[in-house]
Amino acid sequence: VFQRLCLGKIVNLAKPIRCMQRRVQLNTNVVLRNQIQFDFTVSPAAERLRYILNEDDDMPTPTLFTEMDTLQREGGELEWKESARWVKFEEKVEEGGERWSKPHVSTLSLHSLFELRTCLQTGTVLLDLEGYSLPQIIDDIIERQIEEGMISPELRDKISFVLLRKHRHQTKKPIHRSLADIGKSTSSSSECPAIGNDYSRSMNDIADSPSSDQLRNKFMKKIPRDAEASNVLVGEVDFLSKPFVAFVRLAQATTLGGLTEVPVPTRFLFILLGPHGKAKSYNEIGRAIATLMVDDLFSDVAYKARDREDLIAGIDEFLDEVIVLPPGEWDPKIRIEPPKKVPTADKRFEKDEEMPPQHELGEELAFTGRFCGGLYLDIKRKLPWVPSDIYEGFHLQSISAVLFIYLGCITNAITFGGLLGDATDNYQGVMESFLGTALAGSVFCLFSGQPLIILSSTGPILIFEKLLFEFSKSNGIDYMELRLWIGMHSCLQCFILVATDASFIIKYMTRFTEEGFSSLISFIFISDAIKKMVGSFKYYPINTDFKPDYVTTYKCECLAPDLSEFTPWLRSWRFKGSEISAFPRMNDWCLDWSQLSKKECLKYGGSLVGNTCKFVPDLALISFILFFGTYSMTVSLKKFKSSRYFPTKLRKLISDFSIFMSIMTFVGLDMLLGLKTPKLIVPTEFKPTRPGRGWLVMPFGKNPWWVYVASSVPALLVTILIFMDQQISAVIVNRKENKLKKGCGYHLDLFWVGVLMAVCSFLGLPWYVAATVISIAHIDSLKMESESSAPGEQPQFLGVREQRMTGILVFALTGVSIFLAPVLKYIPMPVLYGVFLYMGVASLSGIQFWDRIKLYMMPSKHQPDFPYLRHVPLRKVHLFTLVQIACLAVLWTLKSTFLAIIFPVMILGLMVVRKMLDMVFSQHDLAWIDDLLPGKDKKKKKDDDKKKGKEKKKPKLDDSEEEVRNSSFCCPPQ
Amino acid sequence: VFQRLCLGKIVNLAKPIRCMQRRVQLNTNVVLRNQIQFDFTVSPAAERLRYILNEDDDMPTPTLFTEMDTLQREGGELEWKESARWVKFEEKVEEGGERWSKPHVSTLSLHSLFELRTCLQTGTVLLDLEGYSLPQIIDDIIERQIEEGMISPELRDKISFVLLRKHRHQTKKPIHRSLADIGKSTSSSSECPAIGNDYSRSMNDIADSPSSDQLRNKFMKKIPRDAEASNVLVGEVDFLSKPFVAFVRLAQATTLGGLTEVPVPTRFLFILLGPHGKAKSYNEIGRAIATLMVDDLFSDVAYKARDREDLIAGIDEFLDEVIVLPPGEWDPKIRIEPPKKVPTADKRFEKDEEMPPQHELGEELAFTGRFCGGLYLDIKRKLPWVPSDIYEGFHLQSISAVLFIYLGCITNAITFGGLLGDATDNYQGVMESFLGTALAGSVFCLFSGQPLIILSSTGPILIFEKLLFEFSKSNGIDYMELRLWIGMHSCLQCFILVATDASFIIKYMTRFTEEGFSSLISFIFISDAIKKMVGSFKYYPINTDFKPDYVTTYKCECLAPDLSEFTPWLRSWRFKGSEISAFPRMNDWCLDWSQLSKKECLKYGGSLVGNTCKFVPDLALISFILFFGTYSMTVSLKKFKSSRYFPTKLRKLISDFSIFMSIMTFVGLDMLLGLKTPKLIVPTEFKPTRPGRGWLVMPFGKNPWWVYVASSVPALLVTILIFMDQQISAVIVNRKENKLKKGCGYHLDLFWVGVLMAVCSFLGLPWYVAATVISIAHIDSLKMESESSAPGEQPQFLGVREQRMTGILVFALTGVSIFLAPVLKYIPMPVLYGVFLYMGVASLSGIQFWDRIKLYMMPSKHQPDFPYLRHVPLRKVHLFTLVQIACLAVLWTLKSTFLAIIFPVMILGLMVVRKMLDMVFSQHDLAWIDDLLPGKDKKKKKDDDKKKGKEKKKPKLDDSEEEVRNSSFCCPPQ
Repeated sequence: VFQRLCLGKIVNLAKPIRCMQRRVQLNTNVVLRNQIQFDFTVSPAAERLRYILNEDDDMPTPTLFTEMDTLQREGGELEWKESARWVKFEEKVEEGGERWSKPHVSTLSLHSLFELRTCLQTGTVLLDLEGYSLPQIIDDIIERQIEEGMISPELRDKISFVLLRKHRHQTKKPIHRSLADIGKSTSSSSECPAIGNDYSRSMNDIADSPSSDQLRNKFMKKIPRDAEASNVLVGEVDFLSKPFVAFVRLAQATTLGGLTEVPVPTRFLFILLGPHGKAKSYNEIGRAIATLMVDDLFSDVAYKARDREDLIAGIDEFLDEVIVLPPGEWDPKIRIEPPKKVPTADKRFEKDEEMPPQHELGEELAFTGRFCGGLYLDIKRKLPWVPSDIYEGFHLQSISAVLFIYLGCITNAITFGGLLGDATDNYQGVMESFLGTALAGSVFCLFSGQPLIILSSTGPILIFEKLLFEFSKSNGIDYMELRLWIGMHSCLQCFILVATDASFIIKYMTRFTEEGFSSLISFIFISDAIKKMVGSFKYYPINTDFKPDYVTTYKCECLAPDLSEFTPWLRSWRFKGSEISAFPRMNDWCLDWSQLSKKECLKYGGSLVGNTCKFVPDLALISFILFFGTYSMTVSLKKFKSSRYFPTKLRKLISDFSIFMSIMTFVGLDMLLGLKTPKLIVPTEFKPTRPGRGWLVMPFGKNPWWVYVASSVPALLVTILIFMDQQISAVIVNRKENKLKKGCGYHLDLFWVGVLMAVCSFLGLPWYVAATVISIAHIDSLKMESESSAPGEQPQFLGVREQRMTGILVFALTGVSIFLAPVLKYIPMPVLYGVFLYMGVASLSGIQFWDRIKLYMMPSKHQPDFPYLRHVPLRKVHLFTLVQIACLAVLWTLKSTFLAIIFPVMILGLMVVRKMLDMVFSQHDLAWIDDLLPGKDKKKKKDDDKKKGKEKKKPKLDDSEEEVRNSSFCCPPQ
Repeated sequence: VFQRLCLGKIVNLAKPIRCMQRRVQLNTNVVLRNQIQFDFTVSPAAERLRYILNEDDDMPTPTLFTEMDTLQREGGELEWKESARWVKFEEKVEEGGERWSKPHVSTLSLHSLFELRTCLQTGTVLLDLEGYSLPQIIDDIIERQIEEGMISPELRDKISFVLLRKHRHQTKKPIHRSLADIGKSTSSSSECPAIGNDYSRSMNDIADSPSSDQLRNKFMKKIPRDAEASNVLVGEVDFLSKPFVAFVRLAQATTLGGLTEVPVPTRFLFILLGPHGKAKSYNEIGRAIATLMVDDLFSDVAYKARDREDLIAGIDEFLDEVIVLPPGEWDPKIRIEPPKKVPTADKRFEKDEEMPPQHELGEELAFTGRFCGGLYLDIKRKLPWVPSDIYEGFHLQSISAVLFIYLGCITNAITFGGLLGDATDNYQGVMESFLGTALAGSVFCLFSGQPLIILSSTGPILIFEKLLFEFSKSNGIDYMELRLWIGMHSCLQCFILVATDASFIIKYMTRFTEEGFSSLISFIFISDAIKKMVGSFKYYPINTDFKPDYVTTYKCECLAPDLSEFTPWLRSWRFKGSEISAFPRMNDWCLDWSQLSKKECLKYGGSLVGNTCKFVPDLALISFILFFGTYSMTVSLKKFKSSRYFPTKLRKLISDFSIFMSIMTFVGLDMLLGLKTPKLIVPTEFKPTRPGRGWLVMPFGKNPWWVYVASSVPALLVTILIFMDQQISAVIVNRKENKLKKGCGYHLDLFWVGVLMAVCSFLGLPWYVAATVISIAHIDSLKMESESSAPGEQPQFLGVREQRMTGILVFALTGVSIFLAPVLKYIPMPVLYGVFLYMGVASLSGIQFWDRIKLYMMPSKHQPDFPYLRHVPLRKVHLFTLVQIACLAVLWTLKSTFLAIIFPVMILGLMVVRKMLDMVFSQHDLAWIDDLLPGKDKKKKKDDDKKKGKEKKKPKLDDSEEEVRNSSFCCPPQ
């Protein structure tokens, strides 16, 4: 009560000390708030603002572009020179460097903010002024100041003259300007102190319409279309003895000639002219108001303020939320780079949550309980989007996405084609791989529930095919026919899974399982690539004893078998082959043998004698160089994206095309050297890779009848495998972070994968399933970002261009690529192994599991600031990782035994292990390191909801620091 | 005047509202300061502080370690739990993670600072309390509060009980603690609300002496030895209706049992207990006072404060210097990493200067004008340091430095030895290189002016030797004798340079010349390494047509020359060599030829016939793998220093030994493969590399007399070369940044280099001169840093361990290494070329010129924030770089022509070019990009001095923003 009295006294003081009053009031405000909050929880400033901001909450205020110009003397003439600008962050004109600084966070001094507050309290505040030109506005301001007795009338012309000087913007080349100046200075005596009364406003330097420089300014694209400008003019002049301050809000945003760097209409004008000697201080105040103007909250206040006090309240609120750095711990010379993410106005000071955001899979995975209920819902959900799926594809971005994904797809098709050819003795080779990719991919993209998913050969399928081929070969079963039956069974099983909404089980798939699965795939990639590479050292042994000087002693000769022994056999053999005609006579035998190649020699029973026979020079080493070179070049080029060189777009291009460029480089190197490295075996004609198989596989005839039935058992494995592979990838694609709007269709996807299984089996093409890595690349290349992001601000992620066109185009192109076969045969296999290695390593690097493994090797003080490390004790994190490593080790070991064939089932084992972890770790810890399992999830959520309900009524006491800024602690009245 | 009255009124208000008063006073202070500064320029707070801080300025206050403990309920029992600590930066206890966060800048809210201020105004402030134990201190505080009527006496026991609860520090394992608790809770009813009057202070949980946990705490080594502790205790209790605040300074720092995490005596105690519901607010206040306590200025104030008002003034000053981040531009969740450099208390807010710090070479380079004046001064300067040069060498750090530099030296000796052997046909080989390095290095380290400089073979000398050898070979002059005479002449010329103080010319050497010189050397390194590598592809040609299948057709046979033609010649030759005895008879001729090796075959006139004769398998490729592998492994290991893995020391070790480890790895690989890669030719005995030369070169006898005279011309070139090479390296070593204290000795150094020239020439050893790269590595490995740096703070660089022992030891070891010769022959040359490439690239990377070249490829918004870019327009920077590139291109071209022999003179040309640049660039720009030339430098400095003198009297008006924080702008009284 007493305080109120004291305050009342001060407020009622006479006019001459109004300035002082307000200040005391300000400070008392702060104090009072502390006091009053004990009862009311809202400060007077906040209350005031709440009132004006709630008035018409529906109309968002335009973005403000703020330009600060300072008064400078250039060649004896006064002019306003742009010294900084703000869209969201500050960009300063580097005086010496004559260029814009990097956008940075505006670090202010508390002082300048208080001084600014004083300025607004004492200066002229004109809100909703009808202004059509700068001279008129300035006239109005000066008029008002004279009226209020703040300046003497004789200063009118001088102030007006100064304020109407030309504005020089950073975009203008100083050399133009200085030339233009020379002409001008002859026509007018430009010395400021010499201004007489004859200088009227007609002498102003400001053009009425924006100049061509302004219109041409490329910076415009960084400013949102609806933006308005606020202009801050600060300067020191020698005819004033006290500052001249004005804050103007125009009723309508108006383009005031050359005032602003860009042709954006001006809404706000802050003018501060002061006596000589305080230029830096004025500058700081200018920076303070400019920073305030681009503040979300304050700019709202500025737009809606009814009077001076509203503005002051806005500053007070700003001060209340300000972050303070202690002077001894921070060097103010350091420009603070804009953070990755800035809190929105309403979310400011929300501290990090006790629990991480929930891992949600959406209602698409709900168990309907009806026959084909999920499939029906999927179709119902996707059908309305079909037209937009087509027309939204027509966008420039689609072209680059198509090119990028196409390259990924053919690389994949080549790599997997080559490996499949290896694994299946060319029953499925590159040709089949291309055809199959094109067929399956385009059908899927046309009809699936999630057309962003790219189908491709994947590791698990490859492994299965390999095992299947080995099995059928060693058991004398026809591989292609067996495969067809497996495909058909599997298709049927998929239909059953679709009909019963079985995909809902995916809900139980947490990060633990997802990552275990993909790590395993990655490890297999990596180990396969390395194995292949090591293999080439065995295939092309190096003669380590080779002494260059003894080159004369190295030879390898084909010796005829001992004739006396072999003649009978040879005679019988002699008439078998047609090549035998090449041997002229029996007595010439010796001569002919030396002409034979290694293969021929061995074929005809000759023996190779000599010290070079078992060695192949150079090929192993060049293979290694190609392999390692491709891998490391791809890695380096990928990293290039974050380098400082070249414009962003070029860097992105290089990074996007890194795999392609590396392949090209090392194919080129290989061609240049001309060594006989092992190349990709590609058919030169449109026919199956393996001679002797047709384009259609017949279901009957080659295997005994029981195989048709028994194949349902391996089919079950395939089904589980594709189910897991497909749905895990789909979950990753449909993640909330991708902000997909058209929904997904797990059941529909699985339906089409099943159909394609059968079709591909009939055609003898590889099986296809969602490829995680390429699908993610597809999404990445279609991401939409807000275009005109403020300098320094990270562009906002808006969502993904969801459509079917890119996918269809990619696969159409892949189909056409079959005619590329003559080109593809130049690609050496080691290069493809290098790509393989890269794919394995790259897919590992995005995985949290991998991050956690790396934590083992880091002393805790060097560990990155992962959110889970703030909330879960390190030893628990390590324990969790250890469990994962153990699981993978077990899976890896099993994979190497005869159990490999049940590999897909083992993935299910991971989910069981995860379930058991619930008993070892607390739900809190698991929520941070992993995700919660659905059952617990729901319960937890309910709890959370309850909690939140409570919180609204009374502030959490033991929770985060959020309410510190809203509430206040104070000593009690005594 | 009116304000003063108003203020006076408020101050004279009655007691019950003292809290309010003070607040208004605070705010009025701020306001008043604004007002008053128009006349007085110093705020009352600043004036107050100046008074107390000047009292005894000579005694520095101890460093403060601050620990904040919060009151928590653990298992039904109250305890104080450590929640954060500060040495300089804040380390927070991650509640969930149960560990320390990374040290970060304390971001405070303005609110909490104001609230803290209120607390200090209203709470109990006890300065210089005689305290010997915590119970007694707490008693005193409570007594005072009761006296002043702030709390009722019945609260005494409750408060005392709470404040004497046990303190749990983060270092203690929670599991120990909880076990200990179980036992305790049975013996006492630990529920806080149930405290009756029978709970006396005897029940306190605080031990009197520090526990073993405290004493064992490793964190102690992060705290300076003289440190004292300040303890902040905040918590909420339910028996208080208003906060209980106390700030205590003890008369003597006292160890208060288990209060502090480390056994550091407590000097300050801040206690804040308050009613329930504001825990977070209390926490923030606690953080605020903790941050203040570690602030340089405020901790001074806290030590010297006479009363409450001094503390308040300290806060006001702190607030005045605070840096404010706008809430919309910074996410407070982000922990700000400590900056590299923090401004010291007196340098805060000093903005970057108009001109960069001057490039100073010290008075050592002054021209004395007396005969041997410089040399005399050098000796006089260095003589007193001789004893410390010896005993300061005995330090653990020296061992690692010796090992590191030794490895560098032998690598260099091997590499240069090998190359010199190549260049001089083994007149000087590895053996000479080792001997010479050992001899020259140890003599130089013993007697030179700057023993930190490491002598070594350098690139320019190598080039000169190469050219000299080629010249003498093609002109039939004896190389060793010619070399001896050049050495003697050069030695004499060095003496003349020393006697005339000619080294003063080095002053005119700016960055432009330095960098041009070292870039050229680096480029030569790189191009030589690559040339050598490419050479091996020519030396070991690859058979690119090799088809593995046709291995039977590849051979190379030695065919006898046509006997009919050659018999006469052969007969005559037959009796020449002894090998001829191996040929049994003339008719067996054919058989014998096939047994000959390639060399023998050619020697005896046979011809090699076959398709493999001119090819060597594998060697070229393995050479490339060794070369590139060594280079890239060294680069990666060097980078490893800044990775997150492993403890800092291990990383430093790996980084320091990177070259050694790479060499070892690839030597191992080479041995494993067993290929006949070209190896280092090392003598297996202690004798000159080339058979037929002795250890002493005779001055007369082999060349005509005029050679003795004429050799003074090339000697002049050598002299210029070693003069430039030696002194540029010396300038780099003696740079101000290295904080050398014992001075340098340019003249003395040159004297010894001259002497060693002559000695080495007589012994036929290579010439030695300062090696920039290794010398810098030497200095780096001897750098001393402040040991107990606060967490997050960069250790302070104190200087270099300047002594002669490390150098002497390095070269003694190098001498002993001659017995390593049998080991060294396993090192393949390509590995050494890889090291060479690394050295070239590494020495480029530290050069500003190189940075500027990179700027060409960066869009300006991605360019790093180099200081010169803030002050010099980009196009001028580019122009300057272009001039440098042009100069180097010219030098490079000349180097490739017959003009290469005057290479050293061309370096002088660089200085002339630099001189001419004065006409193109402004002195301001040059000062930033380059350095000023001495003449201008002095003038400039005088100007600066004058300016500074002026500034002291009145603040600069058009300069940096520094006085913004000291002075203040305000609206005028109206």
